[in-house]
Amino acid sequence: MKNNLEQLAKLVRYYILTSTTAAGSGHPSSSLSATDIMVELMFGRSQNKADGSANADERGNGSFFRADLNDHENPNNDRLIFSKGHASPLFYALYAAAGQARNDVELNADEHGKLHRAIDPEELLTLRKFTSRLEGHPTSLFPFTEVPTGSLGQGLSVGVGMALNAKLDGLDYRTYVLMGDSEIAEGSVWEAMAVASFYNLNNLVAVLDINRLGQRGETMLGVNTEIYKQRAESFGWNAIVIDGHNFEEITKAFETATSPQPSPQKGREKPIMIIARTIKGKGVSFIEDKDGWHGKALSAEELNKALAELGEVDKSLVGEVALPERSKSQELGIKVETPKFTNYEEGKKVATRKAYGNALANLVEVDERIVVLDAETSNSTYADSVKKNHPEKFVECFIAEQNMVGMALGFSRRGKIPFVSTFAAFLSRAFDQIRMSALAQSNIKFIGSHAGVSIGEDGSSQMGLEEIAMFRALPETVVLYPSDAVSTEKLVLEAAKHKGNVYIQTTRKETEIIYRNDKIDGNDKNEQELMQQEFKIGGSCTLKSSDKDIATVIGAGVTLHEALAAYEELKKEGINIRVIDLYSVKPLDLESLKKATVETKNIIVVEDNHHEGGIYEAVAGALASVESLSSYKVASLSVTKLPRSGKPDELLAYEEIDKNAIIKLVKTINNSI
Amino acid sequence: MKNNLEQLAKLVRYYILTSTTAAGSGHPSSSLSATDIMVELMFGRSQNKADGSANADERGNGSFFRADLNDHENPNNDRLIFSKGHASPLFYALYAAAGQARNDVELNADEHGKLHRAIDPEELLTLRKFTSRLEGHPTSLFPFTEVPTGSLGQGLSVGVGMALNAKLDGLDYRTYVLMGDSEIAEGSVWEAMAVASFYNLNNLVAVLDINRLGQRGETMLGVNTEIYKQRAESFGWNAIVIDGHNFEEITKAFETATSPQPSPQKGREKPIMIIARTIKGKGVSFIEDKDGWHGKALSAEELNKALAELGEVDKSLVGEVALPERSKSQELGIKVETPKFTNYEEGKKVATRKAYGNALANLVEVDERIVVLDAETSNSTYADSVKKNHPEKFVECFIAEQNMVGMALGFSRRGKIPFVSTFAAFLSRAFDQIRMSALAQSNIKFIGSHAGVSIGEDGSSQMGLEEIAMFRALPETVVLYPSDAVSTEKLVLEAAKHKGNVYIQTTRKETEIIYRNDKIDGNDKNEQELMQQEFKIGGSCTLKSSDKDIATVIGAGVTLHEALAAYEELKKEGINIRVIDLYSVKPLDLESLKKATVETKNIIVVEDNHHEGGIYEAVAGALASVESLSSYKVASLSVTKLPRSGKPDELLAYEEIDKNAIIKLVKTINNSI
Repeated sequence: MKNNLEQLAKLVRYYILTSTTAAGSGHPSSSLSATDIMVELMFGRSQNKADGSANADERGNGSFFRADLNDHENPNNDRLIFSKGHASPLFYALYAAAGQARNDVELNADEHGKLHRAIDPEELLTLRKFTSRLEGHPTSLFPFTEVPTGSLGQGLSVGVGMALNAKLDGLDYRTYVLMGDSEIAEGSVWEAMAVASFYNLNNLVAVLDINRLGQRGETMLGVNTEIYKQRAESFGWNAIVIDGHNFEEITKAFETATSPQPSPQKGREKPIMIIARTIKGKGVSFIEDKDGWHGKALSAEELNKALAELGEVDKSLVGEVALPERSKSQELGIKVETPKFTNYEEGKKVATRKAYGNALANLVEVDERIVVLDAETSNSTYADSVKKNHPEKFVECFIAEQNMVGMALGFSRRGKIPFVSTFAAFLSRAFDQIRMSALAQSNIKFIGSHAGVSIGEDGSSQMGLEEIAMFRALPETVVLYPSDAVSTEKLVLEAAKHKGNVYIQTTRKETEIIYRNDKIDGNDKNEQELMQQEFKIGGSCTLKSSDKDIATVIGAGVTLHEALAAYEELKKEGINIRVIDLYSVKPLDLESLKKATVETKNIIVVEDNHHEGGIYEAVAGALASVESLSSYKVASLSVTKLPRSGKPDELLAYEEIDKNAIIKLVKTINNSI
Repeated sequence: MKNNLEQLAKLVRYYILTSTTAAGSGHPSSSLSATDIMVELMFGRSQNKADGSANADERGNGSFFRADLNDHENPNNDRLIFSKGHASPLFYALYAAAGQARNDVELNADEHGKLHRAIDPEELLTLRKFTSRLEGHPTSLFPFTEVPTGSLGQGLSVGVGMALNAKLDGLDYRTYVLMGDSEIAEGSVWEAMAVASFYNLNNLVAVLDINRLGQRGETMLGVNTEIYKQRAESFGWNAIVIDGHNFEEITKAFETATSPQPSPQKGREKPIMIIARTIKGKGVSFIEDKDGWHGKALSAEELNKALAELGEVDKSLVGEVALPERSKSQELGIKVETPKFTNYEEGKKVATRKAYGNALANLVEVDERIVVLDAETSNSTYADSVKKNHPEKFVECFIAEQNMVGMALGFSRRGKIPFVSTFAAFLSRAFDQIRMSALAQSNIKFIGSHAGVSIGEDGSSQMGLEEIAMFRALPETVVLYPSDAVSTEKLVLEAAKHKGNVYIQTTRKETEIIYRNDKIDGNDKNEQELMQQEFKIGGSCTLKSSDKDIATVIGAGVTLHEALAAYEELKKEGINIRVIDLYSVKPLDLESLKKATVETKNIIVVEDNHHEGGIYEAVAGALASVESLSSYKVASLSVTKLPRSGKPDELLAYEEIDKNAIIKLVKTINNSI
């Protein structure tokens, strides 16, 4: 059944204008410029069959965009990402106009009444209201949202992840990303552009809405579509420039974009960008191409004027969206419940970053959903451990951390469990993307290596000193900081099992194995025997404890080892301290902390990172609101001086977070008792 | 005096190899590939005079790179930024080889002994040591470092800022930025590329060291220099491809790059990129172009082999660096000590973001060092207030926050005071750049508007909920969160006076004027009369206080108003609370907090942002280590549920950080007393 595109575009414009005026806010002008292109995508008829042959059937071969509107997570659905998230009125309007037959029934031209709409157009009038699924920018509340957007320049990265996911899984879906011209000033877009062409993602279609006007005036390039084309082509994409309001040109563009590729030949496997010259506010003459209308809803009076211009709107119209052509199921899962566990000899030295690599390699053997992303540091983070047996699970993201995180979000939404790694400090490069992934309530595991001043000679630019704080500040994000290889492996497994974002921090230097791990001789034994010490999210480990402890020293990562060393020396002098490995920084093991506070009165937190937002504040903050506690003190040893190059031990001493600093503080406490 | 480039390059290679082997770590291969280009830049002779005419004088016209080596901050010096900071051994080696005559004495060819070296070559052997100025990646300890680098892809942004600064000040210096091919995968580079050509920065020269190999394997484009050229040209740059080890080609490239432009003509005013095909490890045959040598120093044995290959090195050689040609002084400063102050009527409503705009416009009238940068949100952040009287002070940075911060760092190092603004949430996009600016101990004022859920209908992607934590976690960074227009203006002034980075958070919604501000009728009066209430970094304001207070409510921004509203209602019921405006979040006013804790025992912190790393943790953390305090409680009201669209008041209620939530908590405390 052929859709009437001009009429549907009119209906969608009607929806955009009425919903934003009802809300009293929103971005109608930004939505109107992209309306015709998106209407074509959703409802336009492809003339080609899947194999590229022409189809003389009047019905055509289904819409360009193909998805089961009743099954949003169907792995075969095409994906549509509104990177220009403020065009949400258009996004919602499309789904109010969209419909699908149930049970694959074929309908005739006059039967569009039997199409079931994706959402009720009435709902559009709830836009931006507190009780509505239709938020100011698309969020997960709205079922058709791929990922929450609204922080510009991030959608293409997500698209790259989803498109690459399709390639890896042998799925046919296409990924479409709508972007605005202002937002492609964001560097993250060009990270995505480069990586997309590197991976030959010819199943990725970017649509660029060149409406010339940003939030406050013209963009850098104005209407110079040729330059956008040159840039896209120099980054390895095919690019087509069109009039974004001419349905014939738009149709041709999508035909080209969705033509299946012939047998792979060099130069053919490129992602494609449709560069559409559009008019901001198109369809409402008195706002068309005018500065000052960004993010402004029409008043009631202006709306009347605009609707008069629009003319008669057929509100019964439904645009038919075709189902995906093929139906391939996706059965990825866990093959074996518990992965192998690396043998670690007690007392030996292994860096926790190395243990991460071991854990990852073991995990990837048993869980098909895992995909590993790294930003050209995999020989340092040890994410490269998976390359040996499962190179297909490793995705090199090059030095482009923002895009890496966006890709991970794309993978996560498509059912994968991404393990994303680089130096902890370089995860700060992608904080906005990580923030958006938390809002998406995704399932990504972030691993930041080279934590703290203890990395040594490379110096301050490479030291992760604020990432504990950074990740703690994000909703529902678990933060783990294991101190040895055994606990690292166990916590990597816990992280994999956990539903939601997790951050694990690892250290560069080799540290002693603290926890038990039985050796396995010969044949495999029951994995359970290995689990001598339980490590769980929200847990901690009290390594040293007596009823004479005058203070509790809390450490994590390298400082836990300093605490243990301090314990030994103090013990020789007859001074007892409790030592807690606070490997779960968020959530905290409040019970163990309360117990230590009640019993020892003095808590010392030692951490190889900046003070603010770190472990001390987490502990002091948690204790301060507990009713029953009183008369205790919490002391902080953290990185307070501008760090610098030097040997790890020199730096730990310089920052006064080493064994000696702990001993000194304990003795001060001891003397005051 | 003509420098012998081949011999100097050999000397520099000698320095690179010996210093890194002595350190036992470092990046010699990355340094060796860029050696010849950099030797040409520093010591090569330009054949042209400044006006472009050829110079037949054997002495030539001075080196391409021109700087007073004894006066590093001379405003006329050319600037050299090693964006590929890991090539620091090369950076230091250049300055060990570089020399200059004192007192502008002209020397003959045999008089190079009279040149004073910039640094003593012996110092190179201290590379990466704890006591050395020569850190693993260049930092401010080394006097010739423009900005600390090491987090890749940031140097070009800094260069854009410095080059634009030269244009604005009418200075002749050129800015050179050395980048690697791996690092230009970073999107921030392409933000800088676009903005540099938009601003016609023909005084900016980027040098791209295409050595093919990243940290672990080949880069995305390998040796395809043509694609790099296409990309650069599509972004509006001139680009030259050369053999990075052929001095003739390198010379020609720098000649072109430094040829003064003819009378401005369209297309001529472009920044220029020299794309140099190089060999990683060039000069040491057994590591040349080999993967696996990134970040690896040669062993003692390997060093001997390499030095044997290098052959005889003339260690007495000094490369002469020319002084800047022109000498223009830079006299920017404050014209009047105190700027005008906007009239605010008590009880009226003005958004603090609006007050920021007012303060900025007033400040710019009196302080010539101020430059205003915004990322296409200036009509929302009100940074556009300066456009009216001082459009030359406003720099539109488009939707490219990372580059904006890098530019600010460039401006800051050249003596300006940048005020950088966008939505608070979008500052998270530039966290890595902000982190590096803190390491640079720069003087940048960051303003994040649209803080908290109280922005309303736009929804969660636009809400700044983690920036208090983000900025607090950085060294020596002041964090301010004013609650009304008067205090905002005063704190903006304090921020301008403060030496160092400051973050100020502003809110979207209009809030009541709380503090006094006398009206001025007719002529100006003494500005001192306006300062009824003192606002200072590290201060706070106790707005309500009695000796019957059963709790202290601490608020900032919008929540301070909720606290005051709660105060009024509770008072009617005979319950007294103290109310503190904690406008200085870092540093905190510990004295006032201690007083409130001792006197009221119950502290409630209400904040419109996520819990972790926020004001509650700052307060609880500060109090927990105070010896004298005991038996008190701190309670937290913060954003704990995933935020969403809605009216501001609905969202404050939903998150339980509004007046009613405060009242409820206070009554609970009251009942338990």
